[in-house]
Amino acid sequence: MASLKSRLEHSVTRNALRSYLAEFISTFIFVFAAVGSAMSSKKLLGNAASQPSGLVGSAVATAFSLVVAVYVSVGVSGGHVNPAVTFGRAIGGHISIPMAMFYWISQMLGSVMACLVLKVTTVGQHVPMQGIIPVEMTGFGAAILEGVMTFALVYTFYAAADPRRGSMTAIGPMAIGFIAGANVLASGPFTGGSMNPAYSFGAALVAGSFKNQAVYWVGPLLGATIAALLYDNVVFPQGSEGIGDGVGV
Amino acid sequence: MASLKSRLEHSVTRNALRSYLAEFISTFIFVFAAVGSAMSSKKLLGNAASQPSGLVGSAVATAFSLVVAVYVSVGVSGGHVNPAVTFGRAIGGHISIPMAMFYWISQMLGSVMACLVLKVTTVGQHVPMQGIIPVEMTGFGAAILEGVMTFALVYTFYAAADPRRGSMTAIGPMAIGFIAGANVLASGPFTGGSMNPAYSFGAALVAGSFKNQAVYWVGPLLGATIAALLYDNVVFPQGSEGIGDGVGV
Amino acid sequence: MASLKSRLEHSVTRNALRSYLAEFISTFIFVFAAVGSAMSSKKLLGNAASQPSGLVGSAVATAFSLVVAVYVSVGVSGGHVNPAVTFGRAIGGHISIPMAMFYWISQMLGSVMACLVLKVTTVGQHVPMQGIIPVEMTGFGAAILEGVMTFALVYTFYAAADPRRGSMTAIGPMAIGFIAGANVLASGPFTGGSMNPAYSFGAALVAGSFKNQAVYWVGPLLGATIAALLYDNVVFPQGSEGIGDGVGV
Amino acid sequence: MASLKSRLEHSVTRNALRSYLAEFISTFIFVFAAVGSAMSSKKLLGNAASQPSGLVGSAVATAFSLVVAVYVSVGVSGGHVNPAVTFGRAIGGHISIPMAMFYWISQMLGSVMACLVLKVTTVGQHVPMQGIIPVEMTGFGAAILEGVMTFALVYTFYAAADPRRGSMTAIGPMAIGFIAGANVLASGPFTGGSMNPAYSFGAALVAGSFKNQAVYWVGPLLGATIAALLYDNVVFPQGSEGIGDGVGV
Repeated sequence: MASLKSRLEHSVTRNALRSYLAEFISTFIFVFAAVGSAMSSKKLLGNAASQPSGLVGSAVATAFSLVVAVYVSVGVSGGHVNPAVTFGRAIGGHISIPMAMFYWISQMLGSVMACLVLKVTTVGQHVPMQGIIPVEMTGFGAAILEGVMTFALVYTFYAAADPRRGSMTAIGPMAIGFIAGANVLASGPFTGGSMNPAYSFGAALVAGSFKNQAVYWVGPLLGATIAALLYDNVVFPQGSEGIGDGVGV
Repeated sequence: MASLKSRLEHSVTRNALRSYLAEFISTFIFVFAAVGSAMSSKKLLGNAASQPSGLVGSAVATAFSLVVAVYVSVGVSGGHVNPAVTFGRAIGGHISIPMAMFYWISQMLGSVMACLVLKVTTVGQHVPMQGIIPVEMTGFGAAILEGVMTFALVYTFYAAADPRRGSMTAIGPMAIGFIAGANVLASGPFTGGSMNPAYSFGAALVAGSFKNQAVYWVGPLLGATIAALLYDNVVFPQGSEGIGDGVGV
Repeated sequence: MASLKSRLEHSVTRNALRSYLAEFISTFIFVFAAVGSAMSSKKLLGNAASQPSGLVGSAVATAFSLVVAVYVSVGVSGGHVNPAVTFGRAIGGHISIPMAMFYWISQMLGSVMACLVLKVTTVGQHVPMQGIIPVEMTGFGAAILEGVMTFALVYTFYAAADPRRGSMTAIGPMAIGFIAGANVLASGPFTGGSMNPAYSFGAALVAGSFKNQAVYWVGPLLGATIAALLYDNVVFPQGSEGIGDGVGV
Repeated sequence: MASLKSRLEHSVTRNALRSYLAEFISTFIFVFAAVGSAMSSKKLLGNAASQPSGLVGSAVATAFSLVVAVYVSVGVSGGHVNPAVTFGRAIGGHISIPMAMFYWISQMLGSVMACLVLKVTTVGQHVPMQGIIPVEMTGFGAAILEGVMTFALVYTFYAAADPRRGSMTAIGPMAIGFIAGANVLASGPFTGGSMNPAYSFGAALVAGSFKNQAVYWVGPLLGATIAALLYDNVVFPQGSEGIGDGVGV
């Protein structure tokens, strides 16, 4: 176990700094597409009620941009792009706590910057946030939904980052993006489908309202914790025989 | 041929138990997205007639989440995520009967749990089921449609799991998810596009109606049987020269 | 150069027969999803005018099912799934003429069977065909559009089947499916986006009208010819230094 | 450093000429699908206001066709398909200036040809261009949006073309197409989501209006420059230890 001092030093090496920059850029790319696509739908529909096609657009933008955001940063920062993923990796001991904190800061800055660019360039367009939960739902129910979906996302990340499955530059980033897109479709009109506290934070800050913000932190961090513990200790423990194609293939 | 006792012992080893858990988690992830996306469309459209965009959303959610559900479990359970696939693998002798039964139970529990979480968290939203077949169609016709589509799915699974094509963690899971998504688009307003008895069972149980449930078991299990026999014995027999890129490339 | 007799013998070996069956199955899977998705949109929209979301559904079903249709047959028949592709491969000398003719027959039978299953099971649903070209367009213009799109498809097939790019079971099938999906979006309301004479033939036969059928044969076969000649002789000639990542990477 | 003469000679070798042809074909394929899908939506919607589903169609067509356009040309020209990418590669010293100019010409010719074919075959359909920016936006804001999105695209190209990540024929082309598709969804109703000066040039020329054309050149070329410098010099410098799965995996 490294001392606090050596850990802090570890977190400001040249490689570490490049990692933070990579997380900033990737979170920017992801949030830009996710928030931008929601703004596009609003612009096209005007005052009309929302439509499934707008949700499809958001889901596809989320999936495609997250695939890319993970892909471009995987070689340097590991492609977290999400404080919940970083939290889950810290729980599993794959990243040190000080470093994880710098990841969080980078991710939140990237998200805020993306929302700001969208707001400034589109002059007067409203940046949508995810806090508007249907009246019949409780914040508790919303947190559970976000937690369950983040569980799926972080569990998929663990699978993609598992060296026993080969390099993460193979279809790992696609799996990560796809589960995010699928879950946006599953939860759009209920919680907005964030699974990413940095995304929710950036949108809330620029929209100027932190209503229900806790939902998008408590749920995802809990879901990430369960995913991390389950993957590493129960379903794919290191001690088990290497991953083949499984018993039931 | 192993004795019944050794077979049963084989099905409660540590690896086998991890497989059942993996099937539970993967079926949960898949059904959550598939059922959730149908609920989202209903929520957005309200009383309005259904629309192709809702169907596109369901298809994309089905495809993306199935890719991931197969991908994350392929290393331990083989990534069945579907009783029809497990049945087809048992027909081909790739999994023992006792083990297949535990797979079925895990898959059905995962599906029920996913539907329950959706129902509880969204408070009062109706969990959609697939039993509402258009009046002009017969249950027999619906079973044939589901059977044909499950044939395509299980045939694709066999191709993906064929070691002569390399590791299944390559694009195999994508092919499996894609054919499910395509078939949802082909059959949505006719049978709902299940191809998965566990999915239909969970949705029916939580919705409280088992109307036409037989359609979603008889068709898929028959389709899976034909796919298994055809792939292993006729189109890609083990005795044939290894799979290259084929004669007509 | 083999004699006619040996060529005919070559086309009825066990492997050849398995290839024809594989082409039949794959064309069935593809046409089932492509035609089924068009029927689904019609069913959902009723008498309402067509909508972009229906076109998106058709494009996604086309792309996803073609990826899979190519993927599952690539190891035995090469994954043509399309008479225009088979024609293009024959032009390039990659498949013998007698064998190509059996491929055509298998593909057309697969397409007809898929349309029949859809028509019978959905009782009374109209099987859509692609002959309804907007009044302002000429058949000649439609043939050019279909030809240009088939050029893109067959050119992509040549790239995917090029051994210098590695095994075709990598992303080759995805590229083939994706270009078909993109072109459906580009041409849907103009020609229907077939690029596949077997698909058009099956739909026309079961719909009972061969109006404009020539458009879907002349255009695609011409486009396939140009693609074959251009790929093999001009852009990627065998004599050239092996394919690296190219000069401008 | 080669002399001007040797550089010019380098740019008219047989391989170089094949590269220009490959860029012409690939840009044709890409612009055909991108512009065609916009025309399809217009045709289906008639005078009705635009809809998110039309945008989804354009985004999917853009993503799928760009994946393929890059994939088929990657072995000979490197798969630029975009003057901004070529510019970014020239900035990083990966392609010589004279060669880059021939790339630009090939790309613009391919785009113009694609728009012409669409206009001629569909007789009287309007070729859409991207110059219609909402009144509340400034040209400056639009250029920033296009620049930011092109930054993401060229940064992704750099990652895909980085030999430390393995061959570009793996999922590299998919990442490139996906980020383009995601950004079309993010910016459709604001700037049209071009990220590609050749695309904008071809559409503008055939539509007969160069309104706001500067937006689609200044923004993308600036974004490409920043992406090139950042990737090669800051985030993934050649001197750094080879790309593994990163520190935070």
